[in-house]
Amino acid sequence: MKIKDRNELEELQKAVLEANLLLYKSKLALHTWGNVSAISKDRSYYVIKPSGIPYEKMQFSDMVPVDLENNVLETNLNPSSDTPTHSLIYKVDSRIQAIVHTHSPFAVAWAQAGKDIPALGTTHADNFYGSIPCTNSLSDQQIQGEYEHNTGLVILDHFQKNKLDYIGTPAVLVKEHGPFCWSNKSAEDAVKLAMTFEEVAKMAFYTKVINPYQNQANPILQKKHYERKHGKNAYYGQKK
Amino acid sequence: MKIKDRNELEELQKAVLEANLLLYKSKLALHTWGNVSAISKDRSYYVIKPSGIPYEKMQFSDMVPVDLENNVLETNLNPSSDTPTHSLIYKVDSRIQAIVHTHSPFAVAWAQAGKDIPALGTTHADNFYGSIPCTNSLSDQQIQGEYEHNTGLVILDHFQKNKLDYIGTPAVLVKEHGPFCWSNKSAEDAVKLAMTFEEVAKMAFYTKVINPYQNQANPILQKKHYERKHGKNAYYGQKK
Amino acid sequence: MKIKDRNELEELQKAVLEANLLLYKSKLALHTWGNVSAISKDRSYYVIKPSGIPYEKMQFSDMVPVDLENNVLETNLNPSSDTPTHSLIYKVDSRIQAIVHTHSPFAVAWAQAGKDIPALGTTHADNFYGSIPCTNSLSDQQIQGEYEHNTGLVILDHFQKNKLDYIGTPAVLVKEHGPFCWSNKSAEDAVKLAMTFEEVAKMAFYTKVINPYQNQANPILQKKHYERKHGKNAYYGQKK
Amino acid sequence: MKIKDRNELEELQKAVLEANLLLYKSKLALHTWGNVSAISKDRSYYVIKPSGIPYEKMQFSDMVPVDLENNVLETNLNPSSDTPTHSLIYKVDSRIQAIVHTHSPFAVAWAQAGKDIPALGTTHADNFYGSIPCTNSLSDQQIQGEYEHNTGLVILDHFQKNKLDYIGTPAVLVKEHGPFCWSNKSAEDAVKLAMTFEEVAKMAFYTKVINPYQNQANPILQKKHYERKHGKNAYYGQKK
Repeated sequence: MKIKDRNELEELQKAVLEANLLLYKSKLALHTWGNVSAISKDRSYYVIKPSGIPYEKMQFSDMVPVDLENNVLETNLNPSSDTPTHSLIYKVDSRIQAIVHTHSPFAVAWAQAGKDIPALGTTHADNFYGSIPCTNSLSDQQIQGEYEHNTGLVILDHFQKNKLDYIGTPAVLVKEHGPFCWSNKSAEDAVKLAMTFEEVAKMAFYTKVINPYQNQANPILQKKHYERKHGKNAYYGQKK
Repeated sequence: MKIKDRNELEELQKAVLEANLLLYKSKLALHTWGNVSAISKDRSYYVIKPSGIPYEKMQFSDMVPVDLENNVLETNLNPSSDTPTHSLIYKVDSRIQAIVHTHSPFAVAWAQAGKDIPALGTTHADNFYGSIPCTNSLSDQQIQGEYEHNTGLVILDHFQKNKLDYIGTPAVLVKEHGPFCWSNKSAEDAVKLAMTFEEVAKMAFYTKVINPYQNQANPILQKKHYERKHGKNAYYGQKK
Repeated sequence: MKIKDRNELEELQKAVLEANLLLYKSKLALHTWGNVSAISKDRSYYVIKPSGIPYEKMQFSDMVPVDLENNVLETNLNPSSDTPTHSLIYKVDSRIQAIVHTHSPFAVAWAQAGKDIPALGTTHADNFYGSIPCTNSLSDQQIQGEYEHNTGLVILDHFQKNKLDYIGTPAVLVKEHGPFCWSNKSAEDAVKLAMTFEEVAKMAFYTKVINPYQNQANPILQKKHYERKHGKNAYYGQKK
Repeated sequence: MKIKDRNELEELQKAVLEANLLLYKSKLALHTWGNVSAISKDRSYYVIKPSGIPYEKMQFSDMVPVDLENNVLETNLNPSSDTPTHSLIYKVDSRIQAIVHTHSPFAVAWAQAGKDIPALGTTHADNFYGSIPCTNSLSDQQIQGEYEHNTGLVILDHFQKNKLDYIGTPAVLVKEHGPFCWSNKSAEDAVKLAMTFEEVAKMAFYTKVINPYQNQANPILQKKHYERKHGKNAYYGQKK
């Protein structure tokens, strides 16, 4: 495949670089950990962080274009090793514009503990409808096979079985691994959501230490706050 | 209503902008979370942060003047969605000059846990007389009705039932939501109190982990420290 | 009393200002909390931070000279409200050159929990010989009387009853209040010790969460590490 | 012994200085705590941080060359007091190029608690094969004898008894003391590993608080992630 719209490619690469740098600056990832991607308008390819290159040294032209079958386009650089997970998420819901994976510590802790992050208050409900789910473990066969592809399958499976909406619940914990989240807007928005994800994971941690019996805020309060910021009757922010 | 004293308006807007930026710089709020307001001398209107505008982009002229019935004055910008909560707090006690709402993580955790923050030592007692109370939950009807107004009512109800003084206890946790606090001095002072609020919430968290049986410092010690800094016989600070 | 050696006064004021600024920069104190003092060579007076002046605005000439009976010398500024506590500590051991008081959060948490900080490892033992003790509470009479003087008395009483050496154990937690520490070298050294104090308090907190049954490192290991850095046979650092 | 290759010496000193400064900047050590060393190609000597010199003042020429019997070469400066521990680790495995010791708080807490850090997820498994082990305590005789040499012996003993590979498990906790780690690449790489060590210790702490029954991630997942980054079939990063 040849990418025709060179302006769009360059814009995507610049946006993805900026979003990756924001991820690093926000301390959601050490060293070369974490990755951000964003998809083209016609959804024929997306652009993702290269594998194992330090954030300090990345150029926008290092951002790797990949098609949805994980074929690298126009470059010799390796894309993030998590690329097959991104591809599956882009394919399952065409509203998703950008995906972020981090190893931010509180979110990783919930993933390692194998627990959903309960919606304990309005900070959570403003951004995530209901709990942030934690997937099942991958089976031994799934790990030994196409591991990163199967990581995506485990996410998709969890959303399907639990009838979750990818935009209402734009985040997931992969068990024993860590957080993924996505945005229907932009790479920058997805990174801001990753920051919120970590903040909500931190608050839930502290809350459960203070009161282990606290489980879910009133569902009516959750709905109110979610709809205050999202959907037809949202009234947070400025008119557009 | 028309605001006559243009100098006072501009000064209020500048002070409210500075206070909002201090809030952000002090890491009490991510993204566009949190808000600070301050009231005019004749208490006919107050100035509050606009809704959903990033801190990095706010200008002083974006700060929204609102009257105590939540009518926006002289601008097309939406004020913070929490505006009706601020209005009720200004109306209940005419000594209150500025109000701050944040989603700082330790204070939010106590609110999500549904627990008062006990006065465990002198850092708390220097600033808050007795526990920082946590309100009841809003009822389903209160959430589905005029939610932000009802949030204010729940605060007022809690202070009235518990005979709390708004200046002695210049702070509250709204259950499943987060902290509000206020100052009888200035917007800057209210933000400094929000920083203290979070610090005290953090210290109480650590203390209860070390010793879950610790509940309240000696009330005589609390009184001593509070009065060292506040009231007629205060002897902290410099003569004025 | 008139201070004769003007050079020494100015040097003390500059050193005390620098040490106070280091305290603030090291995030051991918010707002105007915390204070550092240092004593003159003939021990006729010491210099202490003024009360309630923001760190950002302090000048070296604002540092207040006080004699050991708490009389302010040559200035109209109020010294730190904790001055009488400092005076008593200087009087009890003539090796003490500088004193620091902070409200750093982990140390305060141990003080609020009313617990000694156990010597759980070599980081602690390198700096403090044995547990960092937590005093008893002040009695109601002690609080209502000369409170800050009595705070000093409670510290002195604890050291005397437990036969503690002020240089081997250069730190204490005042129950329901917070940490004090001191140095036989300089104001800067005392602030560095306050940083170590907070770090050790943090490590002890984490350790006790991981393993509540851990209590004291091997006393022989404690002695080894303390003497590696202190005393005749110290071999840490460079020859002088 | 006389060092012949002056260029190599200077390069080692510069690399060791940079690595020590990175350690300090990464907040893995306060004051003069912590130390980094790196060995020459022929393994006849290594270069280590001097003892007790503040990070802010260190020059590259202050980095101390030492032979593997702990003899200081060509300088009057004292090397880090932990030098004999470094020497033993260099001698036991000739693949080790650089060693780091820190007092980073979460790693120290696990050491003080006397517990291995379990491999709870992929962040750990990407970098460490299996648990990060915690040694036994030193005996009283070991402490009172050649303490730092015996600290090294306790590490070597633990690796031998548990048949651990120094490159697969490039890290250890010395009980009641703290973390040591090493790299088969460079001083910089060893410090980056020390940062990862602390991050993994932090994540494990949070995980065990959320779910105390969580113990080890699936060993097949651990192997997969370790081999994704290390060994013949590694596919993380760029081709070289």
